[in-house]
Amino acid sequence: MAKQPKSAITPTREEDYPEWYQQVIKAADLAEVSPVRGCMVIKPWGYALWENIQAALDRRFKETGHENAYFPLLIPKSFLEKEAEHVDGFAKECAVVTHHRLEPGPDGGLVPAGPLEEPLVIRPTSETIIGAMYAKWVQSWRDLPIKINQWANVVRWELRTRLFLRTTEFLWQEGHTAHATSEEAWEETRQMLDVYAEFAENWMALPVIKGEKTAGERFPGAESTLCIEAMMQDRKALQAGTSHFLGQNFAKAQEIKFQNQAGEEAFAWTTSWGVSTRLIGALIMAHSDDDGLVLPPKLAPKHVVILPIYRDDEEKSLVLAYCESLKQELESRQFSGASIRVLIDLRDMRGGEKSWYHIKRGVPLRVEVGPKDIAKNGVFVGRRDTGEKTPQDRTAFLNGVADTLESIQKNLYVRALAFRESHTHTITNLEAFKTFFTSKHEESPEIHGGFALCHFIDGEPAMDAVLKDLKVTPRCLPLNLQDEPGTCLFSGKPTNKRAIFAKAY
Amino acid sequence: MAKQPKSAITPTREEDYPEWYQQVIKAADLAEVSPVRGCMVIKPWGYALWENIQAALDRRFKETGHENAYFPLLIPKSFLEKEAEHVDGFAKECAVVTHHRLEPGPDGGLVPAGPLEEPLVIRPTSETIIGAMYAKWVQSWRDLPIKINQWANVVRWELRTRLFLRTTEFLWQEGHTAHATSEEAWEETRQMLDVYAEFAENWMALPVIKGEKTAGERFPGAESTLCIEAMMQDRKALQAGTSHFLGQNFAKAQEIKFQNQAGEEAFAWTTSWGVSTRLIGALIMAHSDDDGLVLPPKLAPKHVVILPIYRDDEEKSLVLAYCESLKQELESRQFSGASIRVLIDLRDMRGGEKSWYHIKRGVPLRVEVGPKDIAKNGVFVGRRDTGEKTPQDRTAFLNGVADTLESIQKNLYVRALAFRESHTHTITNLEAFKTFFTSKHEESPEIHGGFALCHFIDGEPAMDAVLKDLKVTPRCLPLNLQDEPGTCLFSGKPTNKRAIFAKAY
Repeated sequence: MAKQPKSAITPTREEDYPEWYQQVIKAADLAEVSPVRGCMVIKPWGYALWENIQAALDRRFKETGHENAYFPLLIPKSFLEKEAEHVDGFAKECAVVTHHRLEPGPDGGLVPAGPLEEPLVIRPTSETIIGAMYAKWVQSWRDLPIKINQWANVVRWELRTRLFLRTTEFLWQEGHTAHATSEEAWEETRQMLDVYAEFAENWMALPVIKGEKTAGERFPGAESTLCIEAMMQDRKALQAGTSHFLGQNFAKAQEIKFQNQAGEEAFAWTTSWGVSTRLIGALIMAHSDDDGLVLPPKLAPKHVVILPIYRDDEEKSLVLAYCESLKQELESRQFSGASIRVLIDLRDMRGGEKSWYHIKRGVPLRVEVGPKDIAKNGVFVGRRDTGEKTPQDRTAFLNGVADTLESIQKNLYVRALAFRESHTHTITNLEAFKTFFTSKHEESPEIHGGFALCHFIDGEPAMDAVLKDLKVTPRCLPLNLQDEPGTCLFSGKPTNKRAIFAKAY
Repeated sequence: MAKQPKSAITPTREEDYPEWYQQVIKAADLAEVSPVRGCMVIKPWGYALWENIQAALDRRFKETGHENAYFPLLIPKSFLEKEAEHVDGFAKECAVVTHHRLEPGPDGGLVPAGPLEEPLVIRPTSETIIGAMYAKWVQSWRDLPIKINQWANVVRWELRTRLFLRTTEFLWQEGHTAHATSEEAWEETRQMLDVYAEFAENWMALPVIKGEKTAGERFPGAESTLCIEAMMQDRKALQAGTSHFLGQNFAKAQEIKFQNQAGEEAFAWTTSWGVSTRLIGALIMAHSDDDGLVLPPKLAPKHVVILPIYRDDEEKSLVLAYCESLKQELESRQFSGASIRVLIDLRDMRGGEKSWYHIKRGVPLRVEVGPKDIAKNGVFVGRRDTGEKTPQDRTAFLNGVADTLESIQKNLYVRALAFRESHTHTITNLEAFKTFFTSKHEESPEIHGGFALCHFIDGEPAMDAVLKDLKVTPRCLPLNLQDEPGTCLFSGKPTNKRAIFAKAY
């Protein structure tokens, strides 16, 4: 007889973390690879997560004075070329449109025809095309600030792809703002980082470190990149959002000029900021377990799934009526500003199989209802995060359901934060640093130390060599750290600055 | 002295309808052409309209059992080639991706590099890529139906473009469903047409004719295309949405096969249906007037704009406090299932100029508030659709505001319906038909007869020649018409079928 697996997902996180990740996605039916190289299909359960992420972020963008708009998918090559660092950063991974029709070729098949005078690039990001429009729209200080966000697809040609984390096409939002002063642009840059951090912590239950990128990790063309970094369960870092202070670099390249209040011509100060479907990868890797996806209730497409249990038609009509009224009562209640989202799973399927289906999909609460529960005016409740299963009085369950969801939300956050804290270490000598990133976990060679907080001097050549070898990167200089005298781990020189170092996605 | 224009928009509809259309868009700041050939930038006011359209439709899709998902932007050329009519329909207008990076060329500029083994096409529509996934997902009748919708951008290379109506890139939704039986697929096709018609009439205030396309006007690869057709103010038709019964054509080309309940292998029956940002063009041309945009309240980004009027700081603080409390009271009221959307326009601008700004943008209600209004506990209300301006008691205004918005919504519909009916004629002889479409309006050569309802036989060669000459197309065979004996206008042969003929966008 085959050995019974210990968990719904094979392999477990300990056994093979990267493969566990793929299997969680498959078991939860979130997405799959498509026949188009590097592009994914986001399936309904995965897309519903994205819709919830979009709605929560979009509300925050509007509350902070931004408007949505839409700019072209295609960017003339010459636009990309205007900002030198920017084009260097993206030229190597651009999908290039060179023709505008297909026509029958010599072998009968269709071949590209109608060559374009100037090739077009599918946007890898939209600073250049949006900047070109801002240059037209901005004449006077009265036209500033411009604060626009766009929800869009972008393409960056990736050689090695992984669902949600790194795909050739992905979905994202990109905010682009232009301001009259450096101070105002900096304020915007920081504000949007705060918006991302608040969303990550309160909605994704994902603790994040707000920080500034080192020079080598900045967005191509930016003066400064702020970011939020989260720890996954394999102790790697994942950059969950970035907010760029672009200074006047793009404004100068694109001539976003205005007459200031003193009547002088000046260049605008711009910012850009974005998060993508990568957040779904972060969500999966931060909370899920060896039984599959675990979802923070605020983002779960369904909060509660009701599973009717019956043996015959008589029981069936009794049970379904009870389930339907339960659903209505749940839906009349609020959690986190919206009606509770409920599904009754009516499919003809064995009870255990059905229950596991929803466990693997991460539904926060499962409610089983059979004739025995009804006789006691009760329900049988399974909680996804803790695995607890308890019979409950129906009224008590209904009155407490919003609190239970809140407590699941909080539990996920607390658990992830404790995990990050237990794997974040201050390291003050290079040998310890190397050991931290190379000591092997007995069962899982993927799992290493975690986050290392170290004194460093940005740009020290000694650092680059060590990090490259270890496949470690400086993730950020945490914003909440005070300067503190110390010694650069790599050069031994004095410095006040510290960064988080980690392996990263 | 320059002659004072009679209206906010120059030229008027009568003077030059196509130019009036462009000027309305410009005056309302809805969209503009971009530096990328044929692609538009949808500006915040235009995009907010699209967001409201999306929200209303998305709710309907979900209520009818559809889920959203996302499929790749890029389609391998070979996928497009699988369905013969389909590729014929789209090959001539495809953006073709042939390379995946840019690298420095001999002249210093960047040139396309990394040629792809197989060219990729930017989706002009997604039947082929979505069908390829359905073929993987469908094995048994238990896997059917699949009912998925996608919100996406598509590209069709257009030589002559016009904002919203015909652009190289546009935004749309495309529903794609697969069913076990022909009956079920037909039911879906008709249901989604009904969803579109109900949305057009109740939310866009746009009367539409539901009909079936003639063979020559069908979607490439469809067995039947149903559509909704609306009349614009220049009496041309605009196809506002289509729902395609694809039969088994795509299922056979893509091998969407399943084992039916009898254990036999069968091909699925598929449908697809879509509406696009073109709807915004329809909205503009159906309701707007010579003073600019007129918006149906259900889709207006703002229902009410409050315009404070004051001369000095003392008046200012009084007026702004009154406006703020008015805004809060308005926002606590509901219209059409949502809170009333209110803007206080605080800009430093002359009152008349500010008022015209919002007239041109189509805000349904303008409320002016000055010290005199406050003294009477009143407001001064301007209604966009009728141009009426009346002083009102504050409480009466607040209590009646939802009804007023409802009445504007209804008025726009009734007005558009009366217009269509007065320009729809039953025509029974060819000479009258020709005169109907060629008689020139005195001032406006663009304006012709309207919709002609005529007996016809689909596919009669005599018809094609006449229509081509007149630049008229059969718009649809209206679904609500009973068969009625008559004579084909073009061939003189007996027929029971009638179609609407019109010039069209």
